[in-house]
Amino acid sequence: MIIVMQRGASKKEIGDVMREIEGMGYRTHPIYGVERTVIGAIGDERGKARLQKFETSPGVERVIPILKPYKLAGRELRKEKTGIAVGGNAVFGTGTVPVIAGPCSVESLEQVCSTAEAVKAAGATLLRGGAYKPRTSPYAFQGLEEEGLKMLAEARTRTGLPVVTELMKESVLDLVVAYTDVIQIGARNMQNFDLLKAVGQVQKPVLLKRGLASTINEWLMSAEYIMAQGNMNVILCERGIRTFETATRNTLDLSAVPVLKHETHLPVVVDPSHGTGHWEYVEDMALAAIVGGADGLMIEVHPNPHEAWSDGSQSLTFERFATLMQKARRVAEAVGRKV
Amino acid sequence: MIIVMQRGASKKEIGDVMREIEGMGYRTHPIYGVERTVIGAIGDERGKARLQKFETSPGVERVIPILKPYKLAGRELRKEKTGIAVGGNAVFGTGTVPVIAGPCSVESLEQVCSTAEAVKAAGATLLRGGAYKPRTSPYAFQGLEEEGLKMLAEARTRTGLPVVTELMKESVLDLVVAYTDVIQIGARNMQNFDLLKAVGQVQKPVLLKRGLASTINEWLMSAEYIMAQGNMNVILCERGIRTFETATRNTLDLSAVPVLKHETHLPVVVDPSHGTGHWEYVEDMALAAIVGGADGLMIEVHPNPHEAWSDGSQSLTFERFATLMQKARRVAEAVGRKV
Amino acid sequence: MIIVMQRGASKKEIGDVMREIEGMGYRTHPIYGVERTVIGAIGDERGKARLQKFETSPGVERVIPILKPYKLAGRELRKEKTGIAVGGNAVFGTGTVPVIAGPCSVESLEQVCSTAEAVKAAGATLLRGGAYKPRTSPYAFQGLEEEGLKMLAEARTRTGLPVVTELMKESVLDLVVAYTDVIQIGARNMQNFDLLKAVGQVQKPVLLKRGLASTINEWLMSAEYIMAQGNMNVILCERGIRTFETATRNTLDLSAVPVLKHETHLPVVVDPSHGTGHWEYVEDMALAAIVGGADGLMIEVHPNPHEAWSDGSQSLTFERFATLMQKARRVAEAVGRKV
Amino acid sequence: MIIVMQRGASKKEIGDVMREIEGMGYRTHPIYGVERTVIGAIGDERGKARLQKFETSPGVERVIPILKPYKLAGRELRKEKTGIAVGGNAVFGTGTVPVIAGPCSVESLEQVCSTAEAVKAAGATLLRGGAYKPRTSPYAFQGLEEEGLKMLAEARTRTGLPVVTELMKESVLDLVVAYTDVIQIGARNMQNFDLLKAVGQVQKPVLLKRGLASTINEWLMSAEYIMAQGNMNVILCERGIRTFETATRNTLDLSAVPVLKHETHLPVVVDPSHGTGHWEYVEDMALAAIVGGADGLMIEVHPNPHEAWSDGSQSLTFERFATLMQKARRVAEAVGRKV
Repeated sequence: MIIVMQRGASKKEIGDVMREIEGMGYRTHPIYGVERTVIGAIGDERGKARLQKFETSPGVERVIPILKPYKLAGRELRKEKTGIAVGGNAVFGTGTVPVIAGPCSVESLEQVCSTAEAVKAAGATLLRGGAYKPRTSPYAFQGLEEEGLKMLAEARTRTGLPVVTELMKESVLDLVVAYTDVIQIGARNMQNFDLLKAVGQVQKPVLLKRGLASTINEWLMSAEYIMAQGNMNVILCERGIRTFETATRNTLDLSAVPVLKHETHLPVVVDPSHGTGHWEYVEDMALAAIVGGADGLMIEVHPNPHEAWSDGSQSLTFERFATLMQKARRVAEAVGRKV
Repeated sequence: MIIVMQRGASKKEIGDVMREIEGMGYRTHPIYGVERTVIGAIGDERGKARLQKFETSPGVERVIPILKPYKLAGRELRKEKTGIAVGGNAVFGTGTVPVIAGPCSVESLEQVCSTAEAVKAAGATLLRGGAYKPRTSPYAFQGLEEEGLKMLAEARTRTGLPVVTELMKESVLDLVVAYTDVIQIGARNMQNFDLLKAVGQVQKPVLLKRGLASTINEWLMSAEYIMAQGNMNVILCERGIRTFETATRNTLDLSAVPVLKHETHLPVVVDPSHGTGHWEYVEDMALAAIVGGADGLMIEVHPNPHEAWSDGSQSLTFERFATLMQKARRVAEAVGRKV
Repeated sequence: MIIVMQRGASKKEIGDVMREIEGMGYRTHPIYGVERTVIGAIGDERGKARLQKFETSPGVERVIPILKPYKLAGRELRKEKTGIAVGGNAVFGTGTVPVIAGPCSVESLEQVCSTAEAVKAAGATLLRGGAYKPRTSPYAFQGLEEEGLKMLAEARTRTGLPVVTELMKESVLDLVVAYTDVIQIGARNMQNFDLLKAVGQVQKPVLLKRGLASTINEWLMSAEYIMAQGNMNVILCERGIRTFETATRNTLDLSAVPVLKHETHLPVVVDPSHGTGHWEYVEDMALAAIVGGADGLMIEVHPNPHEAWSDGSQSLTFERFATLMQKARRVAEAVGRKV
Repeated sequence: MIIVMQRGASKKEIGDVMREIEGMGYRTHPIYGVERTVIGAIGDERGKARLQKFETSPGVERVIPILKPYKLAGRELRKEKTGIAVGGNAVFGTGTVPVIAGPCSVESLEQVCSTAEAVKAAGATLLRGGAYKPRTSPYAFQGLEEEGLKMLAEARTRTGLPVVTELMKESVLDLVVAYTDVIQIGARNMQNFDLLKAVGQVQKPVLLKRGLASTINEWLMSAEYIMAQGNMNVILCERGIRTFETATRNTLDLSAVPVLKHETHLPVVVDPSHGTGHWEYVEDMALAAIVGGADGLMIEVHPNPHEAWSDGSQSLTFERFATLMQKARRVAEAVGRKV
């Protein structure tokens, strides 16, 4: 940690800060510049958030952390990428690009099974579907709950596709674990720290969506919450951030993919359906994501988007999804990968 | 709801959309313009999110909702402001400006009681203090939990100040209800819809903080979640939104106050401590909030900010808080209000 | 245009608004809903910004424009894509993906010519280089000005590559026109309307960069400024927008590409160098842009980024650029295009 | 400047960086930490943007500037606040709160003179009015230009109020200087650096509006551009920034006021008309700005907002402005200031 003293800080102020840092078990290293003094505090600053306390010391201008705040999620202590296998045929993080596809909400057995069959035929290797739905309005459809989980499990039985579904509250964690293969933590719960701790205590893979206004740093800290509890199987999912632009539902931050490849060993999946909010833009962004380095895709598909109970405008039909998958295979091949 | 057809939409497309709208129980009213046709759908569109489905109909360009999506929180059905009384001496929403003050985290009985006494002496009418703490890092102090709740209750016994504390998970709702007077829902949980439903089922007042990237509309929808369950005692709290500016921790959106006065009958409190993140800016923004129409303030105060376990850099000392309160009284008087 | 009256607007208020609209030459068409009255104003609302005046009429809640505000730039009046040829070998907007490459700033004849030769050898078809530099600090290098333009022209003579350079003020428009082939309008000047009018009066192609906080709609309105003066040769350039994320210099909004394909017939180029700000991320985003539909790329290349006078950290070396171009060819082929 | 080496940077990499820093005339000061080495570069880093070059050196993780990039605008070299007098009766920056009021656009002599008289009667001390208008659409009213300047000058003659008007291009600088008292640089031109240099070479006070997506740091750097040319009379004007919130036209960043008081000696004015975009919210935010420390206000006033040629929905009537001024006086008095 670097402590920058104010221009004109007194010798006493500098001495006081140094003595206090040393009292906390760090070594200090002052640099006396032309205009300012800067003090290096040597030692592991992580887990010692209280070094920030020097922001309130007389004569201090600012405190700059040097070490990355995440350990388990970071690339410094674990250089090689983490591969996360789900079911028998999908591995995230090792060169292939598994595709998770399915409806926004589970609406009926028929709907989810027909979708599962169609996306499997087109080449998807996992099924998505929401049984618990986070909706902005309390008057909107809130999901079929356990009934929906059962339908997902049945679709898995029929097609062999592992299932990804969202968990919104700890009280149904056991249920979700029992019926499904990957636990999704939605964007709105990315900093629901108790929920993160709870999924950290099971061994199912967790698909952790980025919060609407979360920095990459905060996102990795949320992964760290899960990993610190013992569950190392975290898959990150970029799904767009909130900006001033309204032409798309969110702004898909595709450059987060190469940043994450640099910062973390965890795999990262891209969801262009939520990222754009309009089916017309999904294909272009899905292909771009593969080429940009994504370790997987998550795509909303519905037998009849016009009749979908939620997110119809961003869902692909079976035909459009099949076309996308054909293109995806060609594009992946061009960069030496495989969908 | 207004459905705008694309330029060049065919007669058949227009007819199909109209028939489908009518089939859903609305009356239709087309306007044939020079370039485009626009169709009005007459009927209560709330609770019928599926009207958005027309976004995927052939020939449709966009769908524009006309009615406000919130009913209980809105000003249309309830014109007069809601007053929410807490304890015997604080009422939010009726001209006075109650001040909630206290430490970010409860650290010890001594710390919370001395703070309670100091802020009471200075004129605060409620005590705040966190027993469950949402921290970005899993390695940071997470709160004293039930021990902290007991300390808050003891401080209330000694000073008579009602207590506000944050709830992060449903499993401790009963505890929090038992020990405190106002349940705070933090910014990161503003769209934790299950938690909102849970606090909607008790009758304690809820202080609902605005999410970091939440629009005023979404914020009111979260209030609506609580109210739809039967708890009408919702106090909104503006605490800054996330923007590109980094000179402050967040950007305090003070203009949300007059917007909310226009849109809702619920009281709105301003938290300049989180809004700015620096104690140096708290006083100016606190005074500005009073004059700008806030129904209350929430201020972080600590016996020794330099030693605070969290948020020290945005906490006021007892002396600074007392000075602020003196100024607050003068400023409130100038606009015919009372702190 | 649709005028939404407030709940409870009086008959007189509704009548007054209708009469006033009709007095402005529109036909009116009221829809009397259950809660609200909505009035359609039929007629061409463009160029009549004053219809917004109804926002201040008694009883009016809001005014919703229906028509797109851009005519010349929009896809409604011109369905086919515009192809813009520059020099003999580059055409933007017709399936090929021309690549503009070169240094941020022109620093010397040697620097710009060696770069021109290297990028040409690697497959670039246009040369970029700044002679007038918009720098945040007045103390930073401001560009070689006319001297720089001459160096660019010399590099063109030697390599045959057409030249793109930024124009910051009308007073050097003639100079820039004389020496170069494409006039770049930088992000900071996207709403410098007088400069837009000035470049609208010459016939050189204009590369119009998106403003840091400009919506796609505003961007197209700035294109409209240029086109309304007679210059139809506008190439749009997405270069990242400002968001809360700081891991990248800007947030590259790649989904703007498919949105623009939908909204405008103008070609759109992507600049991943400014979009990300770090050379490590440029290749991934450049490839993603091609697959995502971009009509061209703009890439910063420098003989020795470490010694660059500006933007070194986002510049590619010759070798890295050559590698990128090889991959770009493969990727473009996979989507039936050609770099 | 602090250079943070990567974890695992080699001795050679560290040595190379140190030798190169020393070769540029700085002293180096390495700190060998547990995980990383950090190198301090001692010397004046301003005007030496090229120290950033170390971002591309092998083994370097990041480069952290320590000194503030602005000198003339900063509070470090000039502690006392700058007072800027305009005309005989308005001084910005010395405790009083001058109010600039008038129409968005100059529309007619009658309009501007009647407004000048009304705002003067209510207590305003400067007149605003746009003769050159930056409009998003090329089809919207673009201002009366020189004719408008003459009308402003005539209004000044009749009322004695000094005049503030916007300059959009250097070619009319002399005209604007001749007719008016304060040159306004609009938000869209905050980083039109050539225009900043031009107004830096005259001695008229400049009202520098904050860009829609400009950080406070960038804003001060734009002030520095003007001051570096010799014109020290810069008045900053906060007018709202662009965020995701759409309930207001912009998000008025009132906390910028105390931040600026801390960072600069220049006065800062607040414009709640553009900040909110709705006249209903102007009064609350104007009063809040005074209490929050603003050195002045800028308010749009129109004889008949409903008929205004631009920005009618955010303009106050004469009556509402007079009411605001009465309240403003009371509120200012409560904080020991004077409107």
